[in-house]
Amino acid sequence: MDATARLLITCADRPGIVAAVSNFLYSHGANITQLDQHSTDPEGGEFFMRLEFQTPNLDVSKPALENAFQDVVAERFAMKWRISYAARLKRVAILVSKVDHCLAELLWHWKQGRIQCEISQVISNHEDLRHQVEFFGLPYHYVPVSADKKEDSEQTILSLMEGKTDLVVLARYMQILTGAFIDAYPFQIINIHHSFLPAFVGANPYKQAYERGVKLIGATAHYATEQLDAGPIIEQDVARVSHRHSVAELRELGRNLERSCLARAVRWHVEDRILVHGNKTIVFN
Amino acid sequence: MDATARLLITCADRPGIVAAVSNFLYSHGANITQLDQHSTDPEGGEFFMRLEFQTPNLDVSKPALENAFQDVVAERFAMKWRISYAARLKRVAILVSKVDHCLAELLWHWKQGRIQCEISQVISNHEDLRHQVEFFGLPYHYVPVSADKKEDSEQTILSLMEGKTDLVVLARYMQILTGAFIDAYPFQIINIHHSFLPAFVGANPYKQAYERGVKLIGATAHYATEQLDAGPIIEQDVARVSHRHSVAELRELGRNLERSCLARAVRWHVEDRILVHGNKTIVFN
Amino acid sequence: MDATARLLITCADRPGIVAAVSNFLYSHGANITQLDQHSTDPEGGEFFMRLEFQTPNLDVSKPALENAFQDVVAERFAMKWRISYAARLKRVAILVSKVDHCLAELLWHWKQGRIQCEISQVISNHEDLRHQVEFFGLPYHYVPVSADKKEDSEQTILSLMEGKTDLVVLARYMQILTGAFIDAYPFQIINIHHSFLPAFVGANPYKQAYERGVKLIGATAHYATEQLDAGPIIEQDVARVSHRHSVAELRELGRNLERSCLARAVRWHVEDRILVHGNKTIVFN
Amino acid sequence: MDATARLLITCADRPGIVAAVSNFLYSHGANITQLDQHSTDPEGGEFFMRLEFQTPNLDVSKPALENAFQDVVAERFAMKWRISYAARLKRVAILVSKVDHCLAELLWHWKQGRIQCEISQVISNHEDLRHQVEFFGLPYHYVPVSADKKEDSEQTILSLMEGKTDLVVLARYMQILTGAFIDAYPFQIINIHHSFLPAFVGANPYKQAYERGVKLIGATAHYATEQLDAGPIIEQDVARVSHRHSVAELRELGRNLERSCLARAVRWHVEDRILVHGNKTIVFN
Repeated sequence: MDATARLLITCADRPGIVAAVSNFLYSHGANITQLDQHSTDPEGGEFFMRLEFQTPNLDVSKPALENAFQDVVAERFAMKWRISYAARLKRVAILVSKVDHCLAELLWHWKQGRIQCEISQVISNHEDLRHQVEFFGLPYHYVPVSADKKEDSEQTILSLMEGKTDLVVLARYMQILTGAFIDAYPFQIINIHHSFLPAFVGANPYKQAYERGVKLIGATAHYATEQLDAGPIIEQDVARVSHRHSVAELRELGRNLERSCLARAVRWHVEDRILVHGNKTIVFN
Repeated sequence: MDATARLLITCADRPGIVAAVSNFLYSHGANITQLDQHSTDPEGGEFFMRLEFQTPNLDVSKPALENAFQDVVAERFAMKWRISYAARLKRVAILVSKVDHCLAELLWHWKQGRIQCEISQVISNHEDLRHQVEFFGLPYHYVPVSADKKEDSEQTILSLMEGKTDLVVLARYMQILTGAFIDAYPFQIINIHHSFLPAFVGANPYKQAYERGVKLIGATAHYATEQLDAGPIIEQDVARVSHRHSVAELRELGRNLERSCLARAVRWHVEDRILVHGNKTIVFN
Repeated sequence: MDATARLLITCADRPGIVAAVSNFLYSHGANITQLDQHSTDPEGGEFFMRLEFQTPNLDVSKPALENAFQDVVAERFAMKWRISYAARLKRVAILVSKVDHCLAELLWHWKQGRIQCEISQVISNHEDLRHQVEFFGLPYHYVPVSADKKEDSEQTILSLMEGKTDLVVLARYMQILTGAFIDAYPFQIINIHHSFLPAFVGANPYKQAYERGVKLIGATAHYATEQLDAGPIIEQDVARVSHRHSVAELRELGRNLERSCLARAVRWHVEDRILVHGNKTIVFN
Repeated sequence: MDATARLLITCADRPGIVAAVSNFLYSHGANITQLDQHSTDPEGGEFFMRLEFQTPNLDVSKPALENAFQDVVAERFAMKWRISYAARLKRVAILVSKVDHCLAELLWHWKQGRIQCEISQVISNHEDLRHQVEFFGLPYHYVPVSADKKEDSEQTILSLMEGKTDLVVLARYMQILTGAFIDAYPFQIINIHHSFLPAFVGANPYKQAYERGVKLIGATAHYATEQLDAGPIIEQDVARVSHRHSVAELRELGRNLERSCLARAVRWHVEDRILVHGNKTIVFN
């Protein structure tokens, strides 16, 4: 079984943090196997760190380790921190509509173990993709959405997810979510937008791109926030296009970007590689 | 000597265009060595074509060939067209301010024959780059710009360029040009903007990119039009960045994009590879 | 129904080819909607051309058009040529072993209409992927291979494919085929090799790449020829790696390259975009 | 003045290294501002670490710090290690022949402060680039090479470099160096090879690439070792090509790869970001 733990830390930068954390872990038998840190500025900046350590030789229980860390290290540096354990897989709900490329990609990466998580369910406002999901033995829930009863639908979805969801993935889910829904999962909802944000916010970005005559199209995976397509960006990618591409061809080509961009973002999230800072992300990958 | 001629055609698409053009050229001893065409839609769309042909065995003079083409082919299809000859190099004026990377790249490509043109002069609102330009034996003109006498400066520049300029390259020239100036060289002014347009229009795009937390930065070469950073895009490129990059590092990294993007755009222009259609470009490269 | 025809031509370059071909098609009511040509050298070089034309207004039957083309145009220029019709889908046999990423990609592109072909069957030396293939309603044939009866297995495969196969795709089929098998489908077998050829020919290229310490890994789609991994290259792609990647991670990362590289190569083949010239390809894409 | 120090460490991996090193530095007033580490395997693998720390508040002199580090930390873990100081610029000798693109790129990056080093001299077996080098106020030495007196030339070069060279850059220096020369600067000679190694070792790689019909060309910066083009790879890059590119065009296009690949490698070297391990590099960038 995977005995890896991950420690994520945010605090004001000042001398001694790395020494304090690594000392603490070493003294309790935790073997650090990866360490990434970042400081916006060594003088008065913000400090971010991600450590992976192995737990088999801990001299205390995991809860005791966490308590001690709070008392001995975190308080001293006024840290925001969390520890997660690789063996405890994150539970993911995927929301989709009719197009399947992002869903298919996630399922493929999940099946081959590249995205290590538990997919607890797939929820859709259409029946189209049921067969494809059930093929993998996963539950599929059809929750129709009508313009005038949007809140009801969202309530149904929230109920379905309750108590078994650590991450919500909007895999080309073609409904705009309300602020209430998004607030229920702060920085736990990943959306894929089919443009190179901040260019082409909103509906039909490939048509917008076609009309502007850009020479590259893009895709952006980001955390959903109340403001549409404006949340912290996790990953982006682009592909070269030319005057020869119709809107339909941009859309087709863009699917490759969307699916791989989203898959990387989800993988980094479930591996606890992302820290949100203001409206930006630190990605230790 | 280079005996290549280039024929560029725009007209409404309908059957028979390729046959008519290729027949005409063949019957006059012109050997087609390259042919690119594009149609926005075979039914009622716009048709674009670029041919390269060799002139040594023409059975008429070049002016006679052009006249005949107008009478025999162009009128029949209501074509907009032009012929240019590789041996007649385009005359290029480069406008710069203080940063030299775009200028240095253009000079390097020009010197090694990769951008085939005549650089008639370099004009700047600063003295900084004089030495570097004169090293290549090129004329350097210092035209200071003050906020209240902008038109005077532009008038001086227009006078310097008059009668010897087929293309104006804004190689990080840090002055916004008036509509009057731009109108004097319609689709003959290439600007490099240091962002992936349409994202981050206007001043300080790297700072804007940093604050939005994008994971790729870009550069865009485009024809200048009256509306700032909104003209037809010729070429774009991007580079991957992360949370580790400061604004200064984005700026440094972006220089590689800017210079190569601009150099490609200038090369395509002087090789008559670009057709403007509405606010977009067809680039036959 | 798709009324597009594709004409592919190879001959010695000399003046008049484009005129003759476009005239012939125009005079028979064929509307040219795309034209790509390439010449290795206008003086004494080889000439390659691909045209797409629309057939609804032909003034003769398709066989009559083809006969006339041979008599009127092809003989005059000693052309090798062929016409194919988009409506007559190419029949594809896919050979796989145990890993599914290339197969899954081909099925996905096929299902969404991006690779327009008929998948006549999937053949494997293992049973592992049967379920996945039959999910799409496609026939799956299990043909085990033992070291001492390789020819028997190949004979079985050839029988299964006989009379219904225009293209064979080796989608990570982990058996080396005999020359006899390959000769049965000249330049009609596409293989995906998991390296940037000609680097790392043969077995275990990711291990070879890891040991050499390269900073990019690659994948190569090529036509299979008798000499292992040495046939005409159709498409290649690479991804950046670092000292942090283990062999297993290179293998995982490489799968993205392999599947997209192979899918592009197969699409270009079924759309008649590839001409083989010596041991190289001309790809009109 | 830049008060950054860089500590590079290689040793067998075991628990406690990060804690010991960071504690040591903290206890002496060194503020760690960057830390990168890599382990080939936490169980019995090799451990590599690079730290940047600020020296203004050191409680001892730099030599005393280094002595103490050896006694207190390095011995305990049997480390190979070195400390370098950013303020003490590395002295670089550049060897060139006739083509100038790699040289021009290095000079440009150096002048704008992106590659922080002292260029002590440029040495060439031709006079061609003298003017270009002296323009920057740098010494240029012409050392002709004749086939029968190669050792003499190398001896002259070694004399010119003696006592003032920390890095030798072969910026398209078209002479194969002897083992004796290379041994004088172990892993301190960076060469740029104009192919994606290990493909196309030796002479005329663009011609080899053309003949093999690859769809991407590449460049490789590596440390020179006695075996030609086989030393540890530092950086590689590729560009897409097609059947349309002649050997001359591959060569032109490749220049962009060569110059940027080499510039990155040199920058990483002078910033002490590279560790050599066997025939591979760890690059902390």
